[in-house]
Amino acid sequence: MTERPAGPADLSVTLSNPKAERVKRVAALAGRSARSRAGALLVEGPQGVREAVRYAAPRVRDVYLSPDASLRYPEITSEALEAGLYVHLGTDAVLEAMSADAQGVVAVLDSTGTSLDDVVAAAPRLVAVLSNVRDPGNAGTVIRCADAAGADAVVLAGESVDPGNPKVIRSTAGSLFHLPVARAPLAEAVEALRGAGLTVLAADGSGEDLLGDPTAGAGAGGSDSLAGPTAWVFGNEAWGLRPDELALMDAVVRIPIHGHAESLNLGTAAAVCLYASATAQRA
Amino acid sequence: MTERPAGPADLSVTLSNPKAERVKRVAALAGRSARSRAGALLVEGPQGVREAVRYAAPRVRDVYLSPDASLRYPEITSEALEAGLYVHLGTDAVLEAMSADAQGVVAVLDSTGTSLDDVVAAAPRLVAVLSNVRDPGNAGTVIRCADAAGADAVVLAGESVDPGNPKVIRSTAGSLFHLPVARAPLAEAVEALRGAGLTVLAADGSGEDLLGDPTAGAGAGGSDSLAGPTAWVFGNEAWGLRPDELALMDAVVRIPIHGHAESLNLGTAAAVCLYASATAQRA
Repeated sequence: MTERPAGPADLSVTLSNPKAERVKRVAALAGRSARSRAGALLVEGPQGVREAVRYAAPRVRDVYLSPDASLRYPEITSEALEAGLYVHLGTDAVLEAMSADAQGVVAVLDSTGTSLDDVVAAAPRLVAVLSNVRDPGNAGTVIRCADAAGADAVVLAGESVDPGNPKVIRSTAGSLFHLPVARAPLAEAVEALRGAGLTVLAADGSGEDLLGDPTAGAGAGGSDSLAGPTAWVFGNEAWGLRPDELALMDAVVRIPIHGHAESLNLGTAAAVCLYASATAQRA
Repeated sequence: MTERPAGPADLSVTLSNPKAERVKRVAALAGRSARSRAGALLVEGPQGVREAVRYAAPRVRDVYLSPDASLRYPEITSEALEAGLYVHLGTDAVLEAMSADAQGVVAVLDSTGTSLDDVVAAAPRLVAVLSNVRDPGNAGTVIRCADAAGADAVVLAGESVDPGNPKVIRSTAGSLFHLPVARAPLAEAVEALRGAGLTVLAADGSGEDLLGDPTAGAGAGGSDSLAGPTAWVFGNEAWGLRPDELALMDAVVRIPIHGHAESLNLGTAAAVCLYASATAQRA
């Protein structure tokens, strides 16, 4: 019944006390202040943990599985051991105490994010910037979508939700570990990305330029101009981007609305814009 | 303090008893069985009610507003009165009892949906079909997105959520009243739409054909073939489409994944497919 960490090759040690200090420390990572104090975040469920082990192993501090989960997801255990990670077995009660919604698998990772400098230094061709996106599900959806569209990075600006929020992590479906996610003030991010040669486009219903318009000029969201390096900026789910934010952009682009809808929601708007860029960049 | 319906020109009658039978009947429409018995559905909040009054007035049985809301949204009252609808003022407590999440504005509509025959008779060029989509937010997001992309109709098939579900209505942001939404078994819908000259494409990660592939042949989701009349079929948010469902399709098309994501979620996948069609059909 020791709480000593199991070594990479030692799966015989089973954590059995759901009230142990270690278990409480893991569960506390659901809260932002505990994450900030520990410099760590909590990944819940097999999909997220599998992707963290596969794509972000150097950041993984510990992997915890219930006996059932270790049999059901043998690839997680084997890949984690192969990567030299600390893998712990815990009773169902211990895993349940760590997270009520993890199907017996959690991991604790260093929360060390990427800096804006790192993002820019990698010479990105497609970046998604979220400004004041508050809803964890929305932020996660856009990160997942940016990954699928082949974006090189995501930047969270303004009062956007913490990417270490468990609901963000879950809704990225593992994508949080597939591409760099940085935090930076919007004005700094726009300046740095523009300095790196990207055209900075706001996606906003107020835009004068129409997405994919073949007659539009360079830098205006037209299908030709999208072939170059591009950063897309998406605003708050309720109010979008403020005038002072829009003023920072190279252009403000609206998605054509062919029916009677007023707008698209944040996730679907980001999908349309990011895939328009992905298609144009690969044509 | 009468519960008699106010006539179109009579806004002096205020409903004041939150326990009145009429108030209970309205609130009960949050549940499926009450909707089915009453042949009615409940629209909550200014955006949904405004769009219902504007686009589906013949289906509107009653509009209810709090005094505050009638001042804050004068266009709802005036458009409803102009359309000859029954508009009732109710106290804050009455409106709160009808719906806790409506900002003082609700409407009751006939739930009479569109039939598959009506959808097909209108010679549609773009239709979204949802098979076994259970989550109200997902279904609503796709209906909103279909509207924005200029689709002519949406068909809900299999065990898909009831479009009269208040959460569906809210997440369509009014789009439920902008285009016909029918219910039909999947096989019937596919047959009828194909009979009307539409190519029926499943959006599924297992697809052999790649969305927007310029080298793809006709009917295979390539950018040329998408210019014709098309029905997109989207499956359940967790398991997608079953083999017997996929077998019904003219082709199974996958969205290109450029990064490490396994897939897109339902809403964003639908956005990418429907906008690919909208763009190709208007090129």
